[in-house]
Parts: sequence; structure tokens; C-alpha cells
Amino acid sequence: MSYNSFGHAFRFTTWGESHGPAIGAVVDGCPPGLSLAETDIQPWLDKRRPGSSRFTSQRREPDLVKILSGIFEGQTTGTPISLMIENVDQRPRDYEENAGAYRPGHADYAYDSKYGLRDWRGGGRSSARETASRVAAGAVARLVIPEVSIRAYVVELGGDPIDRALFDAAEIDANSFFCPDPQAADRWEKSVDEARKAGSSLGAVVECVAEGVPAGWGAPIYAKLDSELAAAMMSINAAKGFEMGDGFAAARLSGEENADAMRAGAEGGMPAFLSNHAGGVAGGISTGQPLVVRVAFKPTSSILKPVPTIDRDGKETEISTKGRHDPCVGIRGVPVVAAMMALVLADQKLLHRAQVG
Amino acid sequence: MSYNSFGHAFRFTTWGESHGPAIGAVVDGCPPGLSLAETDIQPWLDKRRPGSSRFTSQRREPDLVKILSGIFEGQTTGTPISLMIENVDQRPRDYEENAGAYRPGHADYAYDSKYGLRDWRGGGRSSARETASRVAAGAVARLVIPEVSIRAYVVELGGDPIDRALFDAAEIDANSFFCPDPQAADRWEKSVDEARKAGSSLGAVVECVAEGVPAGWGAPIYAKLDSELAAAMMSINAAKGFEMGDGFAAARLSGEENADAMRAGAEGGMPAFLSNHAGGVAGGISTGQPLVVRVAFKPTSSILKPVPTIDRDGKETEISTKGRHDPCVGIRGVPVVAAMMALVLADQKLLHRAQVG
Amino acid sequence: MSYNSFGHAFRFTTWGESHGPAIGAVVDGCPPGLSLAETDIQPWLDKRRPGSSRFTSQRREPDLVKILSGIFEGQTTGTPISLMIENVDQRPRDYEENAGAYRPGHADYAYDSKYGLRDWRGGGRSSARETASRVAAGAVARLVIPEVSIRAYVVELGGDPIDRALFDAAEIDANSFFCPDPQAADRWEKSVDEARKAGSSLGAVVECVAEGVPAGWGAPIYAKLDSELAAAMMSINAAKGFEMGDGFAAARLSGEENADAMRAGAEGGMPAFLSNHAGGVAGGISTGQPLVVRVAFKPTSSILKPVPTIDRDGKETEISTKGRHDPCVGIRGVPVVAAMMALVLADQKLLHRAQVG
Amino acid sequence: MSYNSFGHAFRFTTWGESHGPAIGAVVDGCPPGLSLAETDIQPWLDKRRPGSSRFTSQRREPDLVKILSGIFEGQTTGTPISLMIENVDQRPRDYEENAGAYRPGHADYAYDSKYGLRDWRGGGRSSARETASRVAAGAVARLVIPEVSIRAYVVELGGDPIDRALFDAAEIDANSFFCPDPQAADRWEKSVDEARKAGSSLGAVVECVAEGVPAGWGAPIYAKLDSELAAAMMSINAAKGFEMGDGFAAARLSGEENADAMRAGAEGGMPAFLSNHAGGVAGGISTGQPLVVRVAFKPTSSILKPVPTIDRDGKETEISTKGRHDPCVGIRGVPVVAAMMALVLADQKLLHRAQVG
Repeated sequence: MSYNSFGHAFRFTTWGESHGPAIGAVVDGCPPGLSLAETDIQPWLDKRRPGSSRFTSQRREPDLVKILSGIFEGQTTGTPISLMIENVDQRPRDYEENAGAYRPGHADYAYDSKYGLRDWRGGGRSSARETASRVAAGAVARLVIPEVSIRAYVVELGGDPIDRALFDAAEIDANSFFCPDPQAADRWEKSVDEARKAGSSLGAVVECVAEGVPAGWGAPIYAKLDSELAAAMMSINAAKGFEMGDGFAAARLSGEENADAMRAGAEGGMPAFLSNHAGGVAGGISTGQPLVVRVAFKPTSSILKPVPTIDRDGKETEISTKGRHDPCVGIRGVPVVAAMMALVLADQKLLHRAQVG
Repeated sequence: MSYNSFGHAFRFTTWGESHGPAIGAVVDGCPPGLSLAETDIQPWLDKRRPGSSRFTSQRREPDLVKILSGIFEGQTTGTPISLMIENVDQRPRDYEENAGAYRPGHADYAYDSKYGLRDWRGGGRSSARETASRVAAGAVARLVIPEVSIRAYVVELGGDPIDRALFDAAEIDANSFFCPDPQAADRWEKSVDEARKAGSSLGAVVECVAEGVPAGWGAPIYAKLDSELAAAMMSINAAKGFEMGDGFAAARLSGEENADAMRAGAEGGMPAFLSNHAGGVAGGISTGQPLVVRVAFKPTSSILKPVPTIDRDGKETEISTKGRHDPCVGIRGVPVVAAMMALVLADQKLLHRAQVG
Repeated sequence: MSYNSFGHAFRFTTWGESHGPAIGAVVDGCPPGLSLAETDIQPWLDKRRPGSSRFTSQRREPDLVKILSGIFEGQTTGTPISLMIENVDQRPRDYEENAGAYRPGHADYAYDSKYGLRDWRGGGRSSARETASRVAAGAVARLVIPEVSIRAYVVELGGDPIDRALFDAAEIDANSFFCPDPQAADRWEKSVDEARKAGSSLGAVVECVAEGVPAGWGAPIYAKLDSELAAAMMSINAAKGFEMGDGFAAARLSGEENADAMRAGAEGGMPAFLSNHAGGVAGGISTGQPLVVRVAFKPTSSILKPVPTIDRDGKETEISTKGRHDPCVGIRGVPVVAAMMALVLADQKLLHRAQVG
Repeated sequence: MSYNSFGHAFRFTTWGESHGPAIGAVVDGCPPGLSLAETDIQPWLDKRRPGSSRFTSQRREPDLVKILSGIFEGQTTGTPISLMIENVDQRPRDYEENAGAYRPGHADYAYDSKYGLRDWRGGGRSSARETASRVAAGAVARLVIPEVSIRAYVVELGGDPIDRALFDAAEIDANSFFCPDPQAADRWEKSVDEARKAGSSLGAVVECVAEGVPAGWGAPIYAKLDSELAAAMMSINAAKGFEMGDGFAAARLSGEENADAMRAGAEGGMPAFLSNHAGGVAGGISTGQPLVVRVAFKPTSSILKPVPTIDRDGKETEISTKGRHDPCVGIRGVPVVAAMMALVLADQKLLHRAQVG
């Protein structure tokens, strides 16, 4: 019932609104003795930071993280790690004009239905700004799983997919779209520019691969790795779909096509799999193959183009959302997806050793 | 960390193996004063029961449920409801031949990696037989949410989708495939027969719609309705993908196409939405529109066609899975998806009234 | 929010009423590879079984446990262990006469206030019969902590304490009172007989010591070992007080008297403590000293002597509880206290290795 | 497994060390629409604040609380409420001298055994300074249960109990000891002064009464109100014992003495109980009578009198704890006990309406 906490053994709680004084996360259950400083966290936040290119929100947030607890002489102590990020570029007035109307696609109407109030300052708690807290917590999680390497990138933007044959991991950080295919990156530059100029927005699909996860993490039945990852990813703002391995495409394969046949591995090593349709998991437990997930992000709901809506009194009106917004929220979703992968895996590692030692 | 429990306020725990003496569920947190008897549960189990047509497993299980606790004079007491289903048609010997080898696509290797053992009797705990416990618990959940009506059906089988123009809810229970399009049902009869005869198997996509959910259920951030539903659905055996509303297709829409514009509703009623791309949820909270989810099921991993694999000693071999299996596990997934929807919503209703009253 | 579950990593859920068909427990999170059979559990249930002497309830329950899941080839599999005990000597008619009135000291009025019903058949879920499920689950827990030895016994009965100078562990199982002082056992025989004949009842204080717990189990702040043990013990029927180490007596010591001074231990071994006022715990974490707790049990509320009360309509009446009851419920509390100690420690061991490895 | 969180539906997480930059709490699950400002919290913190008399620690902390999130236009929004208190009078150097040695009675050795480190700066996370976070969170909890009034006070100090015949609620806030008996307060002034001058310390027993709790809060079996309260109270620093109602004294009563007989109440009102040995709870559920608990606090472990101990290398030494400490930590335990009562009851109220509506 912890609405704002995630995880079991390695667990974090986030707090804060888009236009309040600060946001933050409390990480609980972290193993002791890990070297941790702000400099371990800041680079991940920098990847997610808005305002870094014309393809993301123009809000200027340095997103500087402070560690307020849980560290002694540069090492984690096993007690809660409190992380805080001050909001410095709030402009709640941008939202004042629309304070009375519900923005379609946003949480405005749903929150009001639930809580009986409308925090119009940029979405309040429902703003994607909350994801900075996850990225900060995810940086701590990475220290718990040094054996794992995680890579996330955009594989489709505005319906335009990458060409897998052109996949080049080195390209991911070389463009503004976390795109592993340089040709797709060029095309996306044009399409995002067009959407931005038209006051529109685009969706995207993010893929995330975790290598180095040993066989045996995860657990039946309601703690399956697939289930935990799905919950993690579907909690991200604007996420509308989740796939593990081949995902929906697996539903179009025959049993023999989908089977990941096994062969003997190297002497003393793990077995060799001839394919990875499953995305690294069977029966909810990792197989030692790379974990592969994909997350679908809808187009940003905040658009300049006017959309019919109603206000809190039920009166019909139109809304055109100004503020400062990402033309494609999926792009900045990349470091968030990677952070959630790290957070799930750190938790699973600890849970596994709890039960199995 | 409850590996075999699901839910928060309305919570259930399942136990039992495919080839043990029985399986069961304990439902905790159920409101008192609800009329409940075995006859409220049995019809839902009958829908999931194997052996009802040639398109499902030929295992003959009556799946008769017994209520062992939590009822007094025909009403729930608010204390735990223990449900038990005896296994009567176990044939563990069917599996003995393959006891030493790992079945690709199954949990065999992953379980062995985790727990250091290989329960070869039909998958043990990882068998889809566990889902009968969910269906039984789901029948109790339905009593908690009489305002909600839930419908699940197959929308694609072996890559062959239904024609939405032919959708007829009355057809769903009129064929062996829970198919709302009678023409698709005819085609699927042939394709499933072919797969079965060829010793192969097929995947499917199941859709589930819940109507009558009021605006306001669900909660930010890590308790979003999307997140809870994704976790619930991805915990089902063979599930590989999850979509909320338009899901992956939403990633291909523009912001203005995807916006569910709002208009004034009837006097005193809820607002009218002009579309439901979101699938009934915004910011993780229900909007009063129908909830719409889709779940992708991979083809059954147990197939007669031989697949290369290894045994516990790492020696290469081939495996051909006899036993009695569904040629398309997605079909019997339909009542399970509906049960998980009910279980999530019963929980969300109680959680909502905890916080908001 | 799991009202009928206890524990985190090693977790159990109980179900069943005093006069229903059966009671049971589901143990989740148990490590795999432990040898487990009904014969590992039965001896502990036998200790708690009613009808074994004239000093306990005359209900005749063999309390035979069945393991329904979680075992393969004699070993735990890491999946849920379902334990069931059939009720064979229910006599709900004994209670019919009092069905309309609330028994003072019992949960009757409180349950009715909460749930709007009165399950008059021997207390239903609130009966101490539920504790058999704990003892069964506790037997599994013991297998997880072979390094720990647990001993529980009565140190005071009807206000008459044992003489610590006469403490003889061998006596505990040699009398009907789990009493380590043979002289006190003789006196208690008389006082319990008198209470029973007078239609009255007596209270007791149970002490439990766990030796072999290494330093380092437990965790700050809300997961302190003291806190977990207190929750465990205070969940037992009729428990009214809990002490860790010196407990209330510690509040009467000076700081220097209460300090458990430390001296160097044997080469390579743990330090030597010069006293154990703390009861083996500091800051919520074990110190390697024996854990010592005490639990106060009120006198059995079911007594033949008439007590003024009201019925469900608010009309004044008197009640004299027939049924079959323990003249001192604290006696049979001994194996329950020991079981709860085992359950907490098994959980703590797993939690400790989750975080610290 | 949330080591630093407490509660289920109304839940809080605390963070921070005694000598770090700040401490804080995140309150999750709070109902929306409650008026909340810093001024609702500050008075409770002021009661707990050190340095207010010569009978408490001389550390000078203003303990000013800031609300960083969860409020909009002066009202709770239903999202997490982040509370922060800056540490302004840290003097870690006071502790440097003893950095290598374990302070008996403190968590030093236990923490080191668990986490492999020794945060010598005033106990770090194990310092009673953490309880300020609870008091802040408790102030929010009080807003959730306006129907309940909570009173806590010291009933025994250094083994010297109050005279119940002299109980005067108005006295509680009129002396430095939260003592309802003015004569006892005079005696305690002397005894605490003596202990302080002698470099020693004293224990205390705190009682807490909650009036206005309706019948029906709490739940069987492992969520009993007694169990939740015990866990809450035993998580407080220096707590060694817990009693519900008569507690250990109940174990010395006969069944008929202990029975809280019932009589018809006023027309339409709740029944009248002729006594309250049970302390307001039966079967783990409130009866509508006042809830009564007592908590035993050991004498402060930090004393000037030298105590034999060892250092981290196992070498024998003596320790005399300077720093700034309470001569009787139980005194400042009073507002903490009251806060924990409020936190448990706010949670129970929400849990009750989740299940029963």
C-alpha cells in the first residue's frame, strides 16, 4: 500500500512536486560498505536533465543531487539514503491560465476525481519531474549490481523504427535521441522538429537490455521478474505498453520457432542458448541470457494545438498547453527506463540471496 | 517479498503444484457480509477447466472448489477464505522420461539454477495449473465490485486477428476460443487443429475490458492502476506483453490524435470523452472510461516437435514433450486475465476508500 | 495490510476457524533444499495439543498435520508449503446457548462491532485454536535456523513465580506446566486444580530464550528485533505484556547497573558480556548474547463463574461459558511463544543475508 | 522489509543521522483535504525538543520543521508529505575520543557486527534524535483522527511510581517530567538531579491513553491492535517492555477479576463496561473503551561513570560517555509514545474503512 515506494529488499520512496521547493528519494535497504558520493549519481541525472537540446523541455534545471543521510566516510552505512534535488526553475504562473480546465491526456481530471483538488502547477505530483528521483535512486542501485551492465535506447520514434542492421551501441550517446542507428537519428531530428513547430508531439518505444544477470534471480508466482519489471516500467509517466523479449511478436510465432533451444556451454560455464525470444526469463526467473524489455511511450499530452475539454464546473472549453514541454517524452524516458531496470535488479539480487543464500 | 501473494488490502496467496495432492488460495482482507458459496466460484473455474474441448489440454480435472474457512451462515466474515481444489488426474509418470532434461521455454532450467532442484512432474509450481487458484480467488473478488462488469476474449490467435467490425459479445461464450468474431473462430478452429496435429502450438492476444469502474481508483506513483494491472497480467504463465489502452499503437500517434478530448456529460453525470486511447486511466488513476488491457501469450512451450536441449549434467540431447497440453495456452488464459482484473479492482476499491473514505 | 500473514522474507499466512472443517498455514519464502516431512512438525504440535492432561482443555484433537505442497523428494523446493490440520472434535452446539450474548474478555463484542456478525461457534477465528497453525509453521522455521536453540517455559503462574535458584531445564518437559522449577510445578498443580474446580482461571508469564543467534540480526528502526518479537508475541491470544531482557525491571536500574559491560572474548571469538540486562539486543540488532523475552498471559476468559454481560440486542444478562477450556491458557502458550520466536528468527536470518550477504 | 518505514495505509519513512545535515520523514497515504501547515507540527516537536530544562540533554536544537511536499493551498493533496528538520547543533567531535570503543548498552557493537562499520558521531542512525521525525509524522497523523484524544505521561521514574489518587491531568504539562502527580514530580526533580550529578541515569515507565477510539479498529490475527502498538512502542529507543491494559498484572488476576463485565449503555449508545483491565482491546480489536498502554524505558546508556568495554580491535578498555545526554531518556519518550499511538491509530482507521467501508 506504499503508493510512493517501490521494491522489497532494496526499496525507495519518492516525494515532491514539479513546482514545489524540491523533490527527493529515500533509499532503504542498501547494503553497507559501498562507496557512494554525489558524483556517482550526478552523471545519470545529467542524462535525464531537461534543456540539454532543442528536442527536450526548455525548463532549466541543474538537477543537482544532495545526499542527506546514509553515508559515513564515503561509504553506505546500511541506513536510509536520503537524496534531495532542489527545483530552481519553477514557473507555476505558466500554468495559471489553464488552472481551471482539465488537460486531456493528463492526470488532472483523474486526480480531481480522486482527491477533490486540482494542483494546476505543472501537474504537481503527476509531473514527469518525479522521474528525476528515480534516476537518482537508480544510480545507487547500480552500485549494488556491479556484475550487471544496462543499456537503454530508443528503437522507434513517431512510428519510425531503427534498422537493427545499423545498430551501433557507440551511437546511443552521440545524438539527442539515445538512438543506436545514426540514420534513424537523422530522420528523427526532422520529425521531432516538425512536431515541435506544429505544436504537436510524438511517441516512442524504448528498449532496455541488462547483461550479466546470473540465472536464478526472480521468483514465482507474483514476484516474477517479468511482473516486477512490468510494474516498474508501467509506473513511468506516459508508459502505455510493456514487452518482455519478443513480447507481442511472440504471440505470432509457433512453439518451435519461439523455443530458445539450449546447447552445452563452454567447460564449466553456463549453457548456450540458440536464441533469446524469451528475453532472458523463464517462469519468472532469469536464465542467464540478457534481459530484454521494451516500453511504449505515448506522445506528450501537453501540446500547443488546442484540444476540446471541460473545466472544473463541467463547462466546455478548449485547452492549449503552454508551459515548457518535451515534444517527445519518450526520449527522456530512456535514462528512467534504465534506472528502473537497475532498481528492480538490485532488489532481486538481495531477494535471491535472502531465500537461497 | 511475498512471492506467492498478490494485492494489498484485498490480498490472496496461492499454493500447490501441478502434480501434488491439491492446489489452493487463501483470500485475506475480504469485506464481511458478502454472500458466498462454492456455487459462486465454480462457474468461473468451469470456464478455465481443461478437457472441455479438443482445443485444450486433455487432462480431466473437475476442479471442484471447497471453501474451508471465512464463511459463517453463508456470508463472508472478514477473516481469511481458504479455497482448495484437489488434483485428481495427475499423471506424473508422463513426465518421467524427460525428468533429466530441461524443456526449452519452460522454467526447468531457471528453477534449477535458482533452487538447485528439478521438479519434473509437469512443471510443479510453474505449471499453469496454478492459475485455477487465481480464478477461484477472482470469483470472490467479483463480489467485492458488483458495480464493475468484466469481459475478456481472444483478439488474435496465431497471428490472425479478429475483425473488430464483426465484434459480437454474445459470440464469446459460443465457441471454444472465447472469440467475439464468429468468422475468426472458424478460421482458428482450423489453425489450432493443424498446430495440434503437427505437434506444434500457437500464441494469442487476450483483451479485457472492465466497465463501471468509477473515476478515482488507483494511485500515484508506484501504485498506478497501469502498474498494478501490468504486474497482475505479467504474472500469468506465458504472458510476454501488456498494453493499456492503445498500448504500443499509442507510440505511433501524434499528441492531438492521442488526446482523449472531453465534453460536458449529461446533467450531473460524468463527463463525456470523445475517445479512449488511454484505456480508462490517466496518471495511474481511473477516469471513469472503460479500462482496456491486452496481454500477449506466447505459444505453449510443451510441444511434441523435438527441440535441442541439455540435461542436468550439461549433456546435449533433444526433447519432445508428451504429457497433455494446450495447443494454445492463450485460450485458457482468458478466464485468468478476467480473474486478475477482478482481483486488482477489488483491491483498488478498498485502497481507495482507505485513503479517501 | 495482510491481516493473517506474518514475516517478511520468511512469511506465513494462517486460516481457519475453531469449529470449521480444518485450519492451516501457508509458509512462503522458505529456502530450498531443507529436509522436511510431517514428522518434523508433529512433535511440536503434540506439545501444544489439548487434552494431554487435566490442566488443559479436554477437547480431543489429534492435530495431525498434512503437507500439501512445497516438498519434492523429501526436500523443500522454495515454493509455498501448505500445511493443513483437520478439526475432528468440534462441538459447536456447546456454544449455542450463549450464541446471543457477548462473552466478556472475549473478542465477541469487538468482532461484532467491526464485522457486524457473531460467529458463536467457539470464537471462530479468534479462538486460540489458530495457534496450532503457528506451531506447525514454526516447525518449518526451526529448520531454517539450525544454529539457534530455543527454550520456552512458564516462570510464573497465578502470581506464583518460580525460584530461579531451582531452575532445571530438564524439568521443563517433565511436568504438565512446562515449569523448570519442580517445587513450583507441585504448587501450580494445586492452584490450577482449585481454579478449575471453582470454575475460575489463572494467568501466567512465559519466558523464552534463544541461544546461538549471531550478532547482527535485526535492523533499525521499525524493523528492530525487539519490535518484531513484540509484534509476534502480542499477536498470541491472551497476551497482555511483553518484555525484552530485564523489561520493566530495567526501568528501575541505574545506568551503570543496567550497562552490559564487555570484556575481550576468547581468541577469535565473540566478546564476553558481563551481564545480559538487554536480553541480547542493542539498537534493535542482536549482540550474540542469548535473546530473552517474557510474555504475560491473562487468565482464560472462558470461565464457568457467571459474569454480567449484554446480548446482541443490548439486553443485560449473565454468562457462564461451558465449552471445553484451559484453566490457564498460558500453559499451552509455551509452544506457541517458542514457535513465534523461531518464525521471527528465521525471517531475520534471511533479511540479514539479503542486505548484508 | 522496509526497515525505516512504519504503517500500512498511513505509512511513514524516516531518514537521517544524529550528526548529519538533517533528519526527516516522508508520510505516505495521508487522506487529502486536511488543513496542514508547519504550525500544526511545531508544537509537538517543541515538547520533545532537547535543552528545554536541566533534566534533558543540553543539545540546543530548535527542531524547526519544513514541509517540502504534499500540500497545495494549505491542504494535504493525498501525495507524500516530506518533512525535514535541519540539525544545527551537531558536535561530532564530542564523540571522537570514544570513536574506537563500543559504548555498552548502545548499538555500537551490534551495528558494527551487522554492517561492518562504526559511525561514532553520536550513534548516527541509532540516536534517539530519530524520534523527532516520528513526532513530526505523528502530528500529521493526529489530523487524520480528530475523534481521538491522546494523553501520555510518566507513571514511574527511577523505580518511584506516581500515586494514582493524586492523578491530575492538568499537571502533566506543568512540570519538566510530564508527571500527573505533583508530589512525585517534586521527588523526581531530586532524583534526576542526583543521577545527573553522579554521572548516572534513570529509567522510567510511560503510560499513554487514547480516548474516542470507536469499537472495531484493529484486525485479527497478525494485525491485532495490541501487536501493532507493541511493535510501534518497542521500536522506540531504550524501550524494553510493553503492556496493554493491566499487562503483567493481568497474569496475577483470576478469570473473574480480569473480566470486563458489560452492562447496557445509554439509549442508542455503546455498552457500559464495569472495568477496563483489557486496556480497550479484545481479540486485537478496539472495544470503544480507552486504549491504555505502558512502555518501560531503560536508563540512558550514555553515562559519565566509566564502564568496562572493548574497542574495535577487541582490546579491553573503559568508557565514559561525554557528549550531551538526557539523565532519563524516558522523559522525552513521552511525546514519542504519544506520536506512535497517533500513527498507529491513523493507520488503523484507514485500514478499517478499507475492509469494512
